[in-house]
Amino acid sequence: MELKVNSIDELVHAIEAPSDEWFRRARVHLDTLTKPLGSLGRLEDLAAQVVAIREDRYAEPLRKAVYVFAADHGITEEGVSAYPRAVTHQMVLNFLGHGAAINVLAGLYGAALHVVDVGVDANLEDASGLLHHKIRRGTRNMLKEAAMSEDEVTRALGVGFKLGEEAAAAGFSLLAIGEMGIGNTTAASAITCALTGAPAMSATGRGTGLNSDAHARKTRVVEAIVAKHCSDANSKSPIEILRRLGGLEIAAMTGMVLAAARDRLIVVVDGFISTVAAAIAVGIVPNACGYLIAGHRSEEPGHQLLLDHLGLTPVLSLGMRLGEGTGAVLAMPVIESAIALYNQMATFKSAGVSEATP
Amino acid sequence: MELKVNSIDELVHAIEAPSDEWFRRARVHLDTLTKPLGSLGRLEDLAAQVVAIREDRYAEPLRKAVYVFAADHGITEEGVSAYPRAVTHQMVLNFLGHGAAINVLAGLYGAALHVVDVGVDANLEDASGLLHHKIRRGTRNMLKEAAMSEDEVTRALGVGFKLGEEAAAAGFSLLAIGEMGIGNTTAASAITCALTGAPAMSATGRGTGLNSDAHARKTRVVEAIVAKHCSDANSKSPIEILRRLGGLEIAAMTGMVLAAARDRLIVVVDGFISTVAAAIAVGIVPNACGYLIAGHRSEEPGHQLLLDHLGLTPVLSLGMRLGEGTGAVLAMPVIESAIALYNQMATFKSAGVSEATP
Repeated sequence: MELKVNSIDELVHAIEAPSDEWFRRARVHLDTLTKPLGSLGRLEDLAAQVVAIREDRYAEPLRKAVYVFAADHGITEEGVSAYPRAVTHQMVLNFLGHGAAINVLAGLYGAALHVVDVGVDANLEDASGLLHHKIRRGTRNMLKEAAMSEDEVTRALGVGFKLGEEAAAAGFSLLAIGEMGIGNTTAASAITCALTGAPAMSATGRGTGLNSDAHARKTRVVEAIVAKHCSDANSKSPIEILRRLGGLEIAAMTGMVLAAARDRLIVVVDGFISTVAAAIAVGIVPNACGYLIAGHRSEEPGHQLLLDHLGLTPVLSLGMRLGEGTGAVLAMPVIESAIALYNQMATFKSAGVSEATP
Repeated sequence: MELKVNSIDELVHAIEAPSDEWFRRARVHLDTLTKPLGSLGRLEDLAAQVVAIREDRYAEPLRKAVYVFAADHGITEEGVSAYPRAVTHQMVLNFLGHGAAINVLAGLYGAALHVVDVGVDANLEDASGLLHHKIRRGTRNMLKEAAMSEDEVTRALGVGFKLGEEAAAAGFSLLAIGEMGIGNTTAASAITCALTGAPAMSATGRGTGLNSDAHARKTRVVEAIVAKHCSDANSKSPIEILRRLGGLEIAAMTGMVLAAARDRLIVVVDGFISTVAAAIAVGIVPNACGYLIAGHRSEEPGHQLLLDHLGLTPVLSLGMRLGEGTGAVLAMPVIESAIALYNQMATFKSAGVSEATP
């Protein structure tokens, strides 16, 4: 199924929030377990959220997948990255050759890894093991024009949406979203400004490692992009923001979040870029927010703005800024621990342990 | 081997810091891997620390154990806990019955779980699966007298030291330390004041869940303990602080940290109480500090004081305050991820990925 912009209304109605009733039941159960009340902290929140999403299937083991969406960005013409544009292509080959960080982590935690070309500026037709969904070879330079046409943004959303639907049909219950795209922190910073109203200076970081001069230049570029694209009446629509500020991989992740929420899957968001995609999805359908778990807190300053915007508290805070879904996959054992504790711990009653004196 | 207080000098010389040379090599290797420089954040620090500890054995899989030391505290007479003293005994039985949080997590991450009675106020002679090393049925009430005699503190240190030596001999490479003991946050708060000079108010928390009145009472108790025990010349010695302020399980964990450091094992510290034990160990032998990884940041306010005192940054920060070693075991997958990334990621050269422009 292709996600059509004119079917968004349908989607808004099809996505329900996770179950309040199951959330309450989960809280009651957690308080019967042999531990001081609330002493598992965030693990209790995670367990309750998973139960609210999964309802009567909460005790089934999670089947986990991670999707890495790769695309290039026209904005790299402006010298906004420490790495050359070719690295997007090179890293896709590294993913396919099992050499990247995400390969190691996905292998370690049993998450099925899918690499999706949604807009890499290279001929990857013969690359095997890659999911081929290229819309175009990178977005346009948004300092000069919109990053995508209406048709392109719709198709990019549709790529992620369809893959999300297929993942649900294949029995996956938890999807992590990640990305690779030289230049994409610039797109993410611009979208963060558009969504939150933050100034470019607070939303623009050093990306893969810019020095101070290059960071100042990148900030000016973000400022100019926002000035160009975000002042007319149309510029408040999340899909229009996505179309103008890109990128193709961000749009695909947004589509995947929407499909996952509709099909009641857990979505683990990685760092800055994927949280941008999730924020757009929530802008389109607010009910999608209850399906999101923020895997980690990225070092990119714009990430905290978006986490606050969405009301999410990240599972991990390890000073990472790599992308690829690494922070999302690294959070999986914590999420699985929360569920295992929920399902396996003895109760005060069953273990004959005295409760607290009030 | 029994750890004798008169052999401490020997121990001071036997414990070397982890290897600076291997630490440097690890940093060089990390910078060749296909990721922006430093972008794995704390995972890079953890990998380098493990390499510095393990030297040429860094690529061998970790063999992990968790030791939960249980003991009672005379100070519970003063009404410092939300739970009755009997819960220490009941929770030991829960550990042996596989119903507690630490059972679930140790099972999930393949850590061998050992439960040690070093001073539970109950007859546990017939309990199978328990390591029997009871020194006495709980410490003395330190509001009135020293928690332990010299002989008792030496023997309690020796229990942990011997178990640590045995773990090393059995091939374990990573030990997590945890505890169970109603009343032990009071001991931990008093020791934190003694070690850091912090006032009782900053080092005393709500433990397993005290209300405001009970928290105020507990703070006054800690204040009185510190006033009684920590003003004479002798009160600066870490072992003497341990003897006066207890507890038996804290002393045993201190002994285990010292044995682990001598035998070059990684020690993952859990929360407030086990960090107190580690701080005493580092007070005795400063070189022990390089073997410590702080598993998580506890909600207890004194924990942060001790982490700062030791210069440790916790792996996780999940609002937990359970003890039992749960925060330490939950950090294991992150530590193992760091090592796997170090060992398995491709280099820029091997993967043909372009490096950053300087």
